[in-house]
Amino acid sequence: MAYVAAPLERLIEQFAKLPGIGRKGATRYAYQVLSMSKQDAMEFAQAIQDAHTKVRRCKVCQNFTEDEICAICSNAGRDHSVICVVESPRDVTAFERTRAFRGVYHVLHGLLSPMDGITAEQLCIKELLDRLKDGEIQELIMATNSTVEGEATAMYIAKLVKPLGVKVTRLAYGLPVGSDIQYADEVTLGSSLTNRKEL
Amino acid sequence: MAYVAAPLERLIEQFAKLPGIGRKGATRYAYQVLSMSKQDAMEFAQAIQDAHTKVRRCKVCQNFTEDEICAICSNAGRDHSVICVVESPRDVTAFERTRAFRGVYHVLHGLLSPMDGITAEQLCIKELLDRLKDGEIQELIMATNSTVEGEATAMYIAKLVKPLGVKVTRLAYGLPVGSDIQYADEVTLGSSLTNRKEL
Repeated sequence: MAYVAAPLERLIEQFAKLPGIGRKGATRYAYQVLSMSKQDAMEFAQAIQDAHTKVRRCKVCQNFTEDEICAICSNAGRDHSVICVVESPRDVTAFERTRAFRGVYHVLHGLLSPMDGITAEQLCIKELLDRLKDGEIQELIMATNSTVEGEATAMYIAKLVKPLGVKVTRLAYGLPVGSDIQYADEVTLGSSLTNRKEL
Repeated sequence: MAYVAAPLERLIEQFAKLPGIGRKGATRYAYQVLSMSKQDAMEFAQAIQDAHTKVRRCKVCQNFTEDEICAICSNAGRDHSVICVVESPRDVTAFERTRAFRGVYHVLHGLLSPMDGITAEQLCIKELLDRLKDGEIQELIMATNSTVEGEATAMYIAKLVKPLGVKVTRLAYGLPVGSDIQYADEVTLGSSLTNRKEL
């Protein structure tokens, strides 16, 4: 491809590495970066570097943060006796958007998946058990996805934690709010029947 | 959004600036960058910087290049008497992919558009006229899009160039190869009738 300048070609390849960006999209973004002002482009490059040099994991909950302890863990106004256990930092963002949860989080940074070689040692489970040691935690909400890996991880942690006398709960699964019964998949619909509540 | 680390939030905003990337996509890309190895992320940042510091315009055709004169203009094997005039460097890439053109190019870097305040002075038209001075150029192929701006730019340049005795041609417009007549839009179908050729 001698007709694309080499530095531009390299930038196209970098964009094409991102998930869901093909060659055409990557080309569009690379030309867009070229048409930015030099200052904007330098800010973009700096933001990528900063994401790697300035973001670290909260010492308590393992969520991404700039500080030693994240804003949620250091917030005295939150209920530190309830921990919502999630797979990734993006799940924390999703729960925070609901404004329905006032407890704290624990980010596992993955799910158990023996097929992919991901064992308990690679997840932040040890850090979670450390938090349970002082006896102040009363409930763990297992908020992993309802996939095979998510369920297995939830069961694994529940088994470890129950002997410590901590209540372990799981998110409710049922029909999405505002959804149409005729379009619900059979597993969700079945789950909504099994978990029906008295009115 | 206190629950997203500030450097990560800045990176999300940078991605969201690109055309066609919304907040959700930008978040996905930012987390992807974070999960890259540090070296890969630094290469990405470097590629953005390099695109701005190392890419410049070819002295002859104004296409993007790393060198003073681009690979196409400095290729003695190409026909330097035919210039294909295009709007942007991406059009050059498109024509090169066809392998049907052995001449050289001229990139205007835009189209005339009085509504958007883009006049002839902002395009690389002066540089094109300079190339015609030595009398070696025999044909200009106006390969701008068949939009109002593309047609106006082609007509404008044709008018300037014809007095110099240079042949000016326009791309053929008709049905796309392999297309279905019943799905062709009426303007394209009309153009294919008007420009019909004897078999």
